[in-house]
Amino acid sequence: MKKVSHWYTNYNSDNFERKEFFSFNDLVLEESEDVKWLEITSLADLDLINDIANKFNLHPLVVEDILDLDHMSKLQDYNEYLYLIIDGMVMDENKKIKIEQYSFILFKNLIISFQQSETKVFDSIITRIKEGSNIRKNGADDLLYALVDAIVDDYFEVVEEIGEYIDEVEDQVLLNPKKESLQEIYRIKRDLIYIRKALWPMRNAISGISKNDYDLIDEKTLYYFRDVYDHVIQLIDIIETYRDICSGMLDTYLSSISNKTNEIMKVLTIFSSIFIPLTFLAGVYGMNFKYLPELNWKYGYLSFWIISTIIILVLLRYFKKKNWF
Amino acid sequence: MKKVSHWYTNYNSDNFERKEFFSFNDLVLEESEDVKWLEITSLADLDLINDIANKFNLHPLVVEDILDLDHMSKLQDYNEYLYLIIDGMVMDENKKIKIEQYSFILFKNLIISFQQSETKVFDSIITRIKEGSNIRKNGADDLLYALVDAIVDDYFEVVEEIGEYIDEVEDQVLLNPKKESLQEIYRIKRDLIYIRKALWPMRNAISGISKNDYDLIDEKTLYYFRDVYDHVIQLIDIIETYRDICSGMLDTYLSSISNKTNEIMKVLTIFSSIFIPLTFLAGVYGMNFKYLPELNWKYGYLSFWIISTIIILVLLRYFKKKNWF
Amino acid sequence: MKKVSHWYTNYNSDNFERKEFFSFNDLVLEESEDVKWLEITSLADLDLINDIANKFNLHPLVVEDILDLDHMSKLQDYNEYLYLIIDGMVMDENKKIKIEQYSFILFKNLIISFQQSETKVFDSIITRIKEGSNIRKNGADDLLYALVDAIVDDYFEVVEEIGEYIDEVEDQVLLNPKKESLQEIYRIKRDLIYIRKALWPMRNAISGISKNDYDLIDEKTLYYFRDVYDHVIQLIDIIETYRDICSGMLDTYLSSISNKTNEIMKVLTIFSSIFIPLTFLAGVYGMNFKYLPELNWKYGYLSFWIISTIIILVLLRYFKKKNWF
Amino acid sequence: MKKVSHWYTNYNSDNFERKEFFSFNDLVLEESEDVKWLEITSLADLDLINDIANKFNLHPLVVEDILDLDHMSKLQDYNEYLYLIIDGMVMDENKKIKIEQYSFILFKNLIISFQQSETKVFDSIITRIKEGSNIRKNGADDLLYALVDAIVDDYFEVVEEIGEYIDEVEDQVLLNPKKESLQEIYRIKRDLIYIRKALWPMRNAISGISKNDYDLIDEKTLYYFRDVYDHVIQLIDIIETYRDICSGMLDTYLSSISNKTNEIMKVLTIFSSIFIPLTFLAGVYGMNFKYLPELNWKYGYLSFWIISTIIILVLLRYFKKKNWF
Amino acid sequence: MKKVSHWYTNYNSDNFERKEFFSFNDLVLEESEDVKWLEITSLADLDLINDIANKFNLHPLVVEDILDLDHMSKLQDYNEYLYLIIDGMVMDENKKIKIEQYSFILFKNLIISFQQSETKVFDSIITRIKEGSNIRKNGADDLLYALVDAIVDDYFEVVEEIGEYIDEVEDQVLLNPKKESLQEIYRIKRDLIYIRKALWPMRNAISGISKNDYDLIDEKTLYYFRDVYDHVIQLIDIIETYRDICSGMLDTYLSSISNKTNEIMKVLTIFSSIFIPLTFLAGVYGMNFKYLPELNWKYGYLSFWIISTIIILVLLRYFKKKNWF
Repeated sequence: MKKVSHWYTNYNSDNFERKEFFSFNDLVLEESEDVKWLEITSLADLDLINDIANKFNLHPLVVEDILDLDHMSKLQDYNEYLYLIIDGMVMDENKKIKIEQYSFILFKNLIISFQQSETKVFDSIITRIKEGSNIRKNGADDLLYALVDAIVDDYFEVVEEIGEYIDEVEDQVLLNPKKESLQEIYRIKRDLIYIRKALWPMRNAISGISKNDYDLIDEKTLYYFRDVYDHVIQLIDIIETYRDICSGMLDTYLSSISNKTNEIMKVLTIFSSIFIPLTFLAGVYGMNFKYLPELNWKYGYLSFWIISTIIILVLLRYFKKKNWF
Repeated sequence: MKKVSHWYTNYNSDNFERKEFFSFNDLVLEESEDVKWLEITSLADLDLINDIANKFNLHPLVVEDILDLDHMSKLQDYNEYLYLIIDGMVMDENKKIKIEQYSFILFKNLIISFQQSETKVFDSIITRIKEGSNIRKNGADDLLYALVDAIVDDYFEVVEEIGEYIDEVEDQVLLNPKKESLQEIYRIKRDLIYIRKALWPMRNAISGISKNDYDLIDEKTLYYFRDVYDHVIQLIDIIETYRDICSGMLDTYLSSISNKTNEIMKVLTIFSSIFIPLTFLAGVYGMNFKYLPELNWKYGYLSFWIISTIIILVLLRYFKKKNWF
Repeated sequence: MKKVSHWYTNYNSDNFERKEFFSFNDLVLEESEDVKWLEITSLADLDLINDIANKFNLHPLVVEDILDLDHMSKLQDYNEYLYLIIDGMVMDENKKIKIEQYSFILFKNLIISFQQSETKVFDSIITRIKEGSNIRKNGADDLLYALVDAIVDDYFEVVEEIGEYIDEVEDQVLLNPKKESLQEIYRIKRDLIYIRKALWPMRNAISGISKNDYDLIDEKTLYYFRDVYDHVIQLIDIIETYRDICSGMLDTYLSSISNKTNEIMKVLTIFSSIFIPLTFLAGVYGMNFKYLPELNWKYGYLSFWIISTIIILVLLRYFKKKNWF
Repeated sequence: MKKVSHWYTNYNSDNFERKEFFSFNDLVLEESEDVKWLEITSLADLDLINDIANKFNLHPLVVEDILDLDHMSKLQDYNEYLYLIIDGMVMDENKKIKIEQYSFILFKNLIISFQQSETKVFDSIITRIKEGSNIRKNGADDLLYALVDAIVDDYFEVVEEIGEYIDEVEDQVLLNPKKESLQEIYRIKRDLIYIRKALWPMRNAISGISKNDYDLIDEKTLYYFRDVYDHVIQLIDIIETYRDICSGMLDTYLSSISNKTNEIMKVLTIFSSIFIPLTFLAGVYGMNFKYLPELNWKYGYLSFWIISTIIILVLLRYFKKKNWF
Repeated sequence: MKKVSHWYTNYNSDNFERKEFFSFNDLVLEESEDVKWLEITSLADLDLINDIANKFNLHPLVVEDILDLDHMSKLQDYNEYLYLIIDGMVMDENKKIKIEQYSFILFKNLIISFQQSETKVFDSIITRIKEGSNIRKNGADDLLYALVDAIVDDYFEVVEEIGEYIDEVEDQVLLNPKKESLQEIYRIKRDLIYIRKALWPMRNAISGISKNDYDLIDEKTLYYFRDVYDHVIQLIDIIETYRDICSGMLDTYLSSISNKTNEIMKVLTIFSSIFIPLTFLAGVYGMNFKYLPELNWKYGYLSFWIISTIIILVLLRYFKKKNWF
């Protein structure tokens, strides 16, 4: 197994330092007022995680939760530190949606972040810090906001992509419903259920930050967290709207199919209703009765066609009146 | 790009002044107890907006929110000022619904309003102020009420228009459901989802004004805001009722189509059930068996018609009894 | 326009007086502890309403609300007086449901009531007061209770009528669903939506009276208002139950129609499946091949009938086994 | 009208007395610490009820509520006494569900109970008191608990019966859906709506007893009422689960019927698709063209059968491939 | 009946003792600070349960609840002890879901647990205690947590199994819906309803522990109970998501079946529409009119085939244009 590099970032308004490290022993944490960020980019490194847990005196349940990838977003206050799980959402190249779980432990001046795999979600933040954004002037709580905000922003991309896909499927269902449309509606519905399932606990967790009065979070930073909270609410709203539209589409699909069956039935009925009586008539004059006077009439065959034409016209008019074509 | 004109209005119970301006430098804000209203009629003018933000010391998030047109209505208290986003709703000439976002910043004696584009929604208010309505006697909070009220009133027009359209589609679905009805129900449903999505956060924002105890809002003005709140609740109620009706229509549509298919099947079944047996009978006497005694009977052909008529009558009576026609 | 007569009632435990009046000038309100009731029976008389508003110093929004007939029930406390809108419900001779809006302004010792048109809803109360009921011994708040109670009682009549209609339609849908049943379910659903829309705000308004601690409402009268509140809750409950039943009926209707289509298909399939093969067989022996040995058999024709009978019996048994008839 | 006997029970831990009475004058209520229970077993006896109301100084609304049989369960505190309406549920011999309304008035040491008709629901309690159960040692509040508990227990029997019926109908719908199944699902749904309608207010009433702090209810008895409350919650839960199952059954029914229609269509299509082309072929060689070479071929007739067989086999294979049989 | 062995466990950080016992007399409970756990593994032993109830002075309702196996999870505080019912869930070898009810009585230093039958759910805990886990250092409240946690963990296994089954059925419904799929969706739905019914009261019970301030539960243990609570919420969430998916599947199934009916109708209509007119044409030239000129044309038969082919091609093109194949 390839050794994964983790990162240690240390900054204040004047200095910025970012170093790779592979095990806890490589790491020297200076005692200072600087903001420190330990970025653990893989959960495979159990030794490292245990070293960290021991060093920072983490509750055994925290370690358990960090490693359990099926966990939902949540916030827990352990007095000395805040523990935050945030489920990120990415769409891979096959448009498949996947949850990436992030754990954050916020101490005074220190954030330890844990992620399942190396992602690019924090790249822009690192660049911004390096280039000296406002974050440099603030504490670790502001960095936490920036990281959470970046994860939430990624949801919007996923949701937008789904929105466009819904529009496509919608047109298809209304204008030309196919067998496959059903599977597509279905796939969207499941994706939405999946995202919603991730968003509700995230909403609670972030609302927990912005509503409570944690010493570790500066009051000024609360405004920012309320903003992230606003974004999550907006996401949930969009998801609910999309789900409404999807349920509508399923009903619409059924109606569309019923419409098509209706059309097919009309064609069948028109053909059958016109030609079955005529076939009977032709059958009558195909009978071999010795005494069948019409057969000997001079205009018998002509009359047959006249009667047939009348029947056709009468039935066509009847169907026309019924608005069948 | 054409230079957009913004407006600066300044009034007290005695004087009224309204001036166009194009950049922040054009503007002289006197220190006085007069009510002042800065009307920024376009969000393209970033310099102007930044100048205002600096001058009035606005929070960076406020500026971000003003420029982000996908934002939902919300109210935020920044102690020194109240920040209010209200999403307006207009219907263009093609009956397409569109959100227009308005941002209001309420200081003591001063309102700064931001809008996406030039609209006529505030025209009647400006006229009323000019002609010396009660607003002239009150503070900036009363002007804020008047502006928000004008935006909310526009919703009623949109909703009324949709209501009339629903009545039309409803009659169509019940009496003569067409393929297009489905698309129309669908369009209404989406419009309603869209409006509801805009109204819920607006409800929270306005309820926030009318329930909290902001220094910037006079207690007397609270009565007015409660009235706007009442209007929003009424709108939400109408929307929910319309959505109920629409869901009912979709079910009704499916039932109507099933009814039509049923009718078509009856026609097909009646024709087929009567003529298929008769065709068989005609086929029998069209057979060329050497020994087929009926063919030589004198009343063979007559009997054939008698039997056929009996079969027809029996079947018709059977279908009649089943209430098929 | 015919002059509408309004009424002025004045009573205490000993005296009762009721006078017609046409304009505010006709009216002499004595200063006394007597309960006074101004009954404005039409909203067309704008002068009168304005005179009253001025005389009793009503808030401009109250006047606006009195005249706006689309308003929902609500309660507003203006310290000096309570303002209550209650939407009444009547069913006209065509079983069409209509809202009648009533506004009540409760002062100490005085009620001003406004109604859209002359109704008989208060007749029994007037009779009871005249004949010296308990109301005579109590204050204006008790009169308000009596008036509101009378309006709420009218709902029960409307709801009962709908209940009976639902039972009728229900039987129809289950036993013999017709095209019209759909429209009838539909009409009921809309009526229920309409009533519910009126009841919810009424619930809030009356709950507002019975829960808050208004000086104008005697504690003893609160028991009575709680009773009215109970009635409103009961009405809402019935409406919800009816809506449940209606939604069930729509589903049931669709299932019933599907059942009928199913039946029709069975008839068609039985007829077609039996006679189409037989027709083919008859067709075979109607062919003119020179060499077609069966035609010359002595028992050819008899065999044909035997084979046909066997086919019929086999198929009938097959369908019987499938429980198709 | 037959005179109905009411009952007067008086007990303490040592003595037990139970007497029939027909009018209020027959009754001597001794002043003592004994628990007294007046059991009014019919509401037809208006004189008696009025006498009781006067004697015990009951609020006029209480009397009105006792006599109004459409009332929902509720609890009202009149300081001196508690007034409790509980709707009981019984299933008659035709499996028809019926509400029996009970009113209880709890004074210190005294319960007055009113019931619509003579029932056996309290029989076991009377026996238990007579035989000296714990109830004898406690106050009137404990008797109230026992009476309410007996009424609630009767619901379980009704609900269990419905549960068994649902299982039956369920199997029917899945395995062999009939026209009548629809009516049966329907009947169950209505029963459940009816029971739920009775349970919700009962839940509020009993929760009202167990949560509030009434002087008339001993704290020790509260445990027992919480137990009854638990039972009511359990009942509501079961009802909701049943309703879920019923809605599912209606959907399932529609799907089952669609399945059956589908099957029927397959049979029709297979028969028609095979024999209609063959009939055409037979028709072709039944034509009387002078020049129709095949008719004179030696193996014409044989070829006809060969071709027919091939057509049949090809089509059967096609349908087989489509999984139609 | 085979004698069931119950268990008595006694431990502190140094010692661990576990003894079988068959009746209450076998049991010697020493007075000590050790944690004691009485494990009653069968409810058939009424004498034992009564002995325990007497010895520990349990409320009669507690005993009743322990023996009533239809009870939902609940928590009740009896001051001296906490009474907790937890419904466990197991899946038997036939994938049938079954509730196992556990009752726990928590005293200071003592837990009495009651279970319906011998299960293996606590085996791992017993092993962990024996081998000296952290539980040994803590009090009886920590043991209660471990026991409840083990029961909750078992739900995840059941839910996971259902999840896999849903995936299977889902693919079936979308790709090849069968009659049996309906029954399978149905079975899953009922299982989910059943589990949800068990989880809601469990949620309340465990939330009751983690939110209230019971003396018997150490504050440190509260963290652990909150974790169990988290797990229950997660389970409820998964169940709700599954229910959503199931409802979607039922709709999808109906649409799939409608699709299939649609396909069948197309086949029928194409065959019928093509061959019925042709059969008529063949019938015409099978007529025996004396004067039927086409019969004597040299190219009559050829023309017949040419016309037939043209009709077939025209109709095929028409159906092709309609996208029917």
